Amino acid sequence: MLNIQLEDFLRRALAEDIGTGDITTINCVPRDAQSKGHFIAKEPGVICGLPVVVRVFALLDSAVCVTPLVAEGDRVEIGTAIAEVSGPAQAVLQGERVALNLLQRLSGIATRTAEAVAEVRGTGTKICDTRKTTPGLRALEKYAVKTGGGSNHRFGLFDGVLIKDNHIVAAGGITAAVEAVWGNVPHTVKIEVETTTLAEVEEALQAGADIIMLDNMDTALMAEAVRLIGGRAITEASGNMGDRSLRDVAKTGVNFISIGALTHTVRPTDISLRFSE
Amino acid sequence: MLNIQLEDFLRRALAEDIGTGDITTINCVPRDAQSKGHFIAKEPGVICGLPVVVRVFALLDSAVCVTPLVAEGDRVEIGTAIAEVSGPAQAVLQGERVALNLLQRLSGIATRTAEAVAEVRGTGTKICDTRKTTPGLRALEKYAVKTGGGSNHRFGLFDGVLIKDNHIVAAGGITAAVEAVWGNVPHTVKIEVETTTLAEVEEALQAGADIIMLDNMDTALMAEAVRLIGGRAITEASGNMGDRSLRDVAKTGVNFISIGALTHTVRPTDISLRFSE
Amino acid sequence: MLNIQLEDFLRRALAEDIGTGDITTINCVPRDAQSKGHFIAKEPGVICGLPVVVRVFALLDSAVCVTPLVAEGDRVEIGTAIAEVSGPAQAVLQGERVALNLLQRLSGIATRTAEAVAEVRGTGTKICDTRKTTPGLRALEKYAVKTGGGSNHRFGLFDGVLIKDNHIVAAGGITAAVEAVWGNVPHTVKIEVETTTLAEVEEALQAGADIIMLDNMDTALMAEAVRLIGGRAITEASGNMGDRSLRDVAKTGVNFISIGALTHTVRPTDISLRFSE
Amino acid sequence: MLNIQLEDFLRRALAEDIGTGDITTINCVPRDAQSKGHFIAKEPGVICGLPVVVRVFALLDSAVCVTPLVAEGDRVEIGTAIAEVSGPAQAVLQGERVALNLLQRLSGIATRTAEAVAEVRGTGTKICDTRKTTPGLRALEKYAVKTGGGSNHRFGLFDGVLIKDNHIVAAGGITAAVEAVWGNVPHTVKIEVETTTLAEVEEALQAGADIIMLDNMDTALMAEAVRLIGGRAITEASGNMGDRSLRDVAKTGVNFISIGALTHTVRPTDISLRFSE
Amino acid sequence: MLNIQLEDFLRRALAEDIGTGDITTINCVPRDAQSKGHFIAKEPGVICGLPVVVRVFALLDSAVCVTPLVAEGDRVEIGTAIAEVSGPAQAVLQGERVALNLLQRLSGIATRTAEAVAEVRGTGTKICDTRKTTPGLRALEKYAVKTGGGSNHRFGLFDGVLIKDNHIVAAGGITAAVEAVWGNVPHTVKIEVETTTLAEVEEALQAGADIIMLDNMDTALMAEAVRLIGGRAITEASGNMGDRSLRDVAKTGVNFISIGALTHTVRPTDISLRFSE
Amino acid sequence: MLNIQLEDFLRRALAEDIGTGDITTINCVPRDAQSKGHFIAKEPGVICGLPVVVRVFALLDSAVCVTPLVAEGDRVEIGTAIAEVSGPAQAVLQGERVALNLLQRLSGIATRTAEAVAEVRGTGTKICDTRKTTPGLRALEKYAVKTGGGSNHRFGLFDGVLIKDNHIVAAGGITAAVEAVWGNVPHTVKIEVETTTLAEVEEALQAGADIIMLDNMDTALMAEAVRLIGGRAITEASGNMGDRSLRDVAKTGVNFISIGALTHTVRPTDISLRFSE
Repeated sequence: MLNIQLEDFLRRALAEDIGTGDITTINCVPRDAQSKGHFIAKEPGVICGLPVVVRVFALLDSAVCVTPLVAEGDRVEIGTAIAEVSGPAQAVLQGERVALNLLQRLSGIATRTAEAVAEVRGTGTKICDTRKTTPGLRALEKYAVKTGGGSNHRFGLFDGVLIKDNHIVAAGGITAAVEAVWGNVPHTVKIEVETTTLAEVEEALQAGADIIMLDNMDTALMAEAVRLIGGRAITEASGNMGDRSLRDVAKTGVNFISIGALTHTVRPTDISLRFSE
Repeated sequence: MLNIQLEDFLRRALAEDIGTGDITTINCVPRDAQSKGHFIAKEPGVICGLPVVVRVFALLDSAVCVTPLVAEGDRVEIGTAIAEVSGPAQAVLQGERVALNLLQRLSGIATRTAEAVAEVRGTGTKICDTRKTTPGLRALEKYAVKTGGGSNHRFGLFDGVLIKDNHIVAAGGITAAVEAVWGNVPHTVKIEVETTTLAEVEEALQAGADIIMLDNMDTALMAEAVRLIGGRAITEASGNMGDRSLRDVAKTGVNFISIGALTHTVRPTDISLRFSE
Repeated sequence: MLNIQLEDFLRRALAEDIGTGDITTINCVPRDAQSKGHFIAKEPGVICGLPVVVRVFALLDSAVCVTPLVAEGDRVEIGTAIAEVSGPAQAVLQGERVALNLLQRLSGIATRTAEAVAEVRGTGTKICDTRKTTPGLRALEKYAVKTGGGSNHRFGLFDGVLIKDNHIVAAGGITAAVEAVWGNVPHTVKIEVETTTLAEVEEALQAGADIIMLDNMDTALMAEAVRLIGGRAITEASGNMGDRSLRDVAKTGVNFISIGALTHTVRPTDISLRFSE
Repeated sequence: MLNIQLEDFLRRALAEDIGTGDITTINCVPRDAQSKGHFIAKEPGVICGLPVVVRVFALLDSAVCVTPLVAEGDRVEIGTAIAEVSGPAQAVLQGERVALNLLQRLSGIATRTAEAVAEVRGTGTKICDTRKTTPGLRALEKYAVKTGGGSNHRFGLFDGVLIKDNHIVAAGGITAAVEAVWGNVPHTVKIEVETTTLAEVEEALQAGADIIMLDNMDTALMAEAVRLIGGRAITEASGNMGDRSLRDVAKTGVNFISIGALTHTVRPTDISLRFSE
Repeated sequence: MLNIQLEDFLRRALAEDIGTGDITTINCVPRDAQSKGHFIAKEPGVICGLPVVVRVFALLDSAVCVTPLVAEGDRVEIGTAIAEVSGPAQAVLQGERVALNLLQRLSGIATRTAEAVAEVRGTGTKICDTRKTTPGLRALEKYAVKTGGGSNHRFGLFDGVLIKDNHIVAAGGITAAVEAVWGNVPHTVKIEVETTTLAEVEEALQAGADIIMLDNMDTALMAEAVRLIGGRAITEASGNMGDRSLRDVAKTGVNFISIGALTHTVRPTDISLRFSE
Repeated sequence: MLNIQLEDFLRRALAEDIGTGDITTINCVPRDAQSKGHFIAKEPGVICGLPVVVRVFALLDSAVCVTPLVAEGDRVEIGTAIAEVSGPAQAVLQGERVALNLLQRLSGIATRTAEAVAEVRGTGTKICDTRKTTPGLRALEKYAVKTGGGSNHRFGLFDGVLIKDNHIVAAGGITAAVEAVWGNVPHTVKIEVETTTLAEVEEALQAGADIIMLDNMDTALMAEAVRLIGGRAITEASGNMGDRSLRDVAKTGVNFISIGALTHTVRPTDISLRFSE
């Protein structure tokens, strides 16, 4: 995400919250009052979103200073001071909620991703995300997945081909679908085909799929599919992976496990902004 | 949210997902192919977001027809067909993800809100939301809270006064803060003060607060505060309410319980779009 | 109004005036020519808009320096130098008209508001504005009312409830309307009801209105209404208040007088930008 | 103004007023309630803005029907029904204020322009506007001037050359300024020079000015200037023309009188929206 | 390109041309005048842009009717009527220039692409575009390349990896660069490496490049590189291909020839809009 | 073009190219790597676009420094270093393509314009552009024409009147058309009439046209038209001037030759960005 795109997003977020003016702060807090506070972790987690926090306050008042005290992607414990914010109290109070809403959410995604990555450690399998993101926040949410140690799947419908069941029906079969796509999309993107049976896997392989998604297969079937493919295509396990033993799935030898829950069911990390007296 | 504002949001959501083009669909699916599918509940829940789904597809192709089969806010069981979508297959496939991402998320919020409302039923206490919403989605998320039977707190910093600890420190006390605000904000908004002790409650009352927030009080203290206030101000329980027995809190007699978790920790309702062959 | 929102407004204002380029200045005035001038009051008035002037020129060229010589809200006499502007002559000339159009208009509003405030001085009654503002300029115009010593009514349809005659008809009476609203709007906003007779005042009181608008009542009736209400609701006189003796209205004891003319019939304060040779 | 540009302006105007939702109307007025009303002139005037009113309601709900009952630019008397509006009551009530704010303002401008035009009738002199318009509304305000029978001066800094005193100083004299511009601006725009003395008029003529502005001249001097020019350039009287006898000015023979007050000091025409029971 | 994105582009294009109004047409042509005309090819070519033309006029006035008389991508001869446009004369005249500017340009690109495709016909080599497009028009220009029978390379920097000389230097060699990218980009995109020597080709192959760009190689060297690669990677010839014999290049057996000149040096096809009396 | 408008254009251009991120550079090039390079002319030409290049990189990263080594509008030879760019390597690589695409295109226009100007040197005839520009780039392309020594015709439909054949037909003749326009457009714009015969020239003169376009006339006829007009109107030769001997046309004595090909058929100047090791 370019800075200029992040700024557009944050302008809208700030306008959404502050609207025609923060009527409490403007009237309670003297214009020249200064304040200083710390973002404190109230539970352990992987921190993600510090550059976003910096920019939230910069947009409100360039006199606010945000100093990260941990690195982006660091794992922190309860009570860790994550960043210090100081400057004009009005701007600090006006940006607090937007900053926290984003920092908590992105850290929540990074933390969950890190847990998934830890679960499959040593297997060679990678954890990746999906398009089940919050509308408007995809770039940030996918960034959080990477910060947590995961990989990104395609960003959207435009930078990768994923032939699903409905495409296959519409095209008249896997082979027809792959042929229809092949030669019509940029030669710089790969072609992924969703499969649910070994027969489909076989057909996708023959059609020349670069990536084969093993969708909603049980572990035994998945292992057999991976053997069948034998390295001739990248393999990706998919389908309610948020509810399964990732380690068992990884042991089948798949290259990737894509997990919608990383971004669609987010438990934000509890972080608060505590002001110094 | 005005239609014209919802459209702006959805345009951005669609652009985020489709970007420079859905390279799979455009090449696999004939331009004149028609498709028909149903949004199916894969778990029970309160449905929210049908008008949003209608507009997602309308923006892509006015020839797509979405027919809701349940009413907005209806509780549905597993397997219920929520809406039918039919029309040009390309547009249906291109809008599917954005529509599902929103429908699932909003239904998840409505469902959780309905559970909270059920928990306090009969006590006279109302459940309301907070500003802990996803940046960019506040209007939709607050709408989902109402659809689930909850109330909305102020929308943002501009349409209600909430004097928090930092404001009190900056202003030099509750009384000073209320006085600073009173007479400087429109006479059409109420003034809420955050309190954590009975002494603060007393001071807020004397200062003329319209609403008194009882923040992070245990049930006994909260009950005493409610008695002290005696109807002279609206009372609102707040502070990690997502983790407490709402019924116990409600029994203290507070008017409102505000719960950040309604919108910040969302478990999307599992809904899928199933195509008819 | 956030800085980032003011900038959007000013960008459009500058684009409207300068469009594809100031063909006179660019060709007549050397790029490195410097100029210095003063904004001079050509009639007495209350000055409003200095921060806007600063930003107009900053948007065109950060090398332009604007130094206010009076404070925002100061009353000035004929001939007073309000602010000095100096810097690249091209930018100064290109921003002159937009700056003056806004400074004159906002000062005109502040001046008229100050006159109204002066007229009711000592009565305890406050002067406030309405939604009869210029589309696109509401934030600035309401800011000018405050700068002139007035109060702001609700900003728009979203941050306060005002039940008017048509709402009452549609809802089936004042009581029904208040009940319909109560419990459905955020508990942070007040409910105002428009009344024209004592019977309506009585019904509004009983229904629990927070604010009662006394619309187009003559002074005697208004005084009786204020007595009837007896402090149980905020009172607001309304209806062609721009044409009446505000002091007579204030003497009825109403809390607020709302005057559309403050913003809909603006006589801009005569201010010019005089260049030093 | 293109329809697509007018719509952008109106979207912003509606968003400004309705923001996050008209909380009164949505809760008081049933979604399927219909209403019908008439825009009624409460004082005589020239009506301007009917196409704008049509579009305001169309943007809110395409089911609202606005039927003009007089033609754009018609002179109406007190009590004249200007237009009928009917359709969903919610949309009618939500659009009322924006529609009235614009209709009243534009009609006020058209009415004042028509008075000025009437004052110089028969003299051959034309009334025109200036750049002293409300930021953001120039296209509409200049349209109102034309609707009232006036002419438009250049739209902005980009579509006409007007060499003023500061340009003359910066360029080193009238002749130098005209020469600097001539040959550097598109050959499709005319060059106007501001003059205050006969010597300046003479120099502007010699330099080849297409239009000579006679700025702040008394009637006698202006008459002499017009004679001196003798038709070799278009003449335009300017400078506080809102406060002078336009007929006296016109009798000097000037081609145009430009009046800033047409748009900077607007008395909106009193128009109300009266609902039928 | 989504319709909603095309509309944004066309709105800006129309605003650029029409600005504050088409002062000629509005005054010369009666509002109710109808006109009918035909887009006529004044030289042979491949037509591209008809859907764009349709939308240009639809944005101005939905009453304008555009009927294509040839299919998108058809080759036409001198004098062929390409499309008929009929409807309100004002809208037709206001949209004419924007429509022609785009239709001519896109047809020019399609025509040149078709020539390149024809030159390599039978060789199995495909012609593709580059990122050397006009800023703001990339989606349309790449669409024109496809319409002319060519393929699209990656759309931008986000949907494909192309490791160029500068990346190689910064990363410390081809192998290091591929490794740095591999595992950090979505597994759905391919990795292309720019090479100029056989040694580099060999290293890229070993590093696992999916696509190998043969940059500025003479035909002999290129043929050798293709042999060396032996189908283990996709091959792409690049570097001033607009000036070389495409057939000679194709005979080396490369899979793709990418040609910047397709979009950076455009000779628009001569097309005019001829009105019927 | 205001800076704020140029920035909007460049933001869109950068977003178009970089989209959701430059996945090659971000992964290959260390965040703190610095790079330095020079824009080098690979063929002779007139350089145009340096301020644009400066701003492209400034938008990406304010730490990038661009130092022009020649002046805007300078003629350079093969091998000339045009500008130096240095700073963070990631930003330099991300901005390279957009910067080059614009610099090459604008220099191409300036170069061709300079050739045309040279061809008519000494005749007193000026070269000007038309509205045949690339949608979205008109301000930049017209700026390049001026940089190359040409003049600008009107910017668009709003800042000059050009009565063409279709307007004449719709209005009922040249005289009627001029009369319809005269008095209805701002008195600050000139009226141009397109003519193809001496009779039309005569009628345009009588009607009071300020500028007479001699459209598609052969040299003899044009010379006669110029004599007939005898300085009573500005003359402009038009119609496929890109294909004719400009010197022959100029010798007829016309004031302007307008050439669509200056901007519609652009051969970009070959310029590359060469990095220092």
